[in-house]
Amino acid sequence: MITTDLCVKMVLDRWNGSIENLNKHLTVLSDEQLLKEIAPGKNRGIYLLGHLIAVHDDMLRLLDMGEKMFPELYEPFIKQADKVVTQIPSAAELRAMWAKQNNMFQEKFAKTTTDEWFSKHTAVSEEDFSKEPHRNKLNIMITRTSHLQYHTGQLVLLN
Amino acid sequence: MITTDLCVKMVLDRWNGSIENLNKHLTVLSDEQLLKEIAPGKNRGIYLLGHLIAVHDDMLRLLDMGEKMFPELYEPFIKQADKVVTQIPSAAELRAMWAKQNNMFQEKFAKTTTDEWFSKHTAVSEEDFSKEPHRNKLNIMITRTSHLQYHTGQLVLLN
Repeated sequence: MITTDLCVKMVLDRWNGSIENLNKHLTVLSDEQLLKEIAPGKNRGIYLLGHLIAVHDDMLRLLDMGEKMFPELYEPFIKQADKVVTQIPSAAELRAMWAKQNNMFQEKFAKTTTDEWFSKHTAVSEEDFSKEPHRNKLNIMITRTSHLQYHTGQLVLLN
Repeated sequence: MITTDLCVKMVLDRWNGSIENLNKHLTVLSDEQLLKEIAPGKNRGIYLLGHLIAVHDDMLRLLDMGEKMFPELYEPFIKQADKVVTQIPSAAELRAMWAKQNNMFQEKFAKTTTDEWFSKHTAVSEEDFSKEPHRNKLNIMITRTSHLQYHTGQLVLLN
């Protein structure tokens, strides 16, 4: 395997492993547990789940993989803090969105070549990218995996 | 920049960014706050800090970068759960170990070539590595960055 393909594999393996790890925890957590705060005065599990779906939805645009699947989640789960928006999807609805989104990512990733992974993401200009080639689509996966792990460390506290 | 060098930069940038991010939080947290549990009945901040230092210390061996700096941290912070070992370093002592360790890593990383990053880590045999070339030193950085972010998400709850 040539090293650039290897690099893509390593990064995507970590993303996939992180998604599977969170899925294991979500399977064990009930909807009632998700409605609780992760620590007194902090975000609820349901907010973190909605937040992750919304942030990952935003990745579609950055990765040039199509339009957002759930644009309605931006307001309650990215723009606003927890409990500001009272009308939000139920835990069951969010779980379904999460599963649908992850299936869609797998389909998209399976068709993405190594060259495409190392091409610029949509939030950087061609001029800037020529000087900063690390601002590519694979780097988006690296940073979003970090973010996913950060919130997974919080979600597990509900158990 | 050739793509393999780019891959190394992207992965190490994420590690460095994650370390800096935790440092920002540690600067704000007092030693008293670190002695508290991140959530009722869960690990204390001081345990998580000791745990991160111990896990990163173990990386030295995997990356073939020398002997452990703090082998005494294995027992209280990896082998045992929080509060099992009562005699542990103070928060101030752990902060000093953390800073010393991170400086040492920067020195080591500065001297590590791209080829060395893609070489096998010490816990995989040559035979297995020939079939699984993703089991390299850079991948250790990828997985430990995940782990670091996971526990950072927990430590920030002390604020």
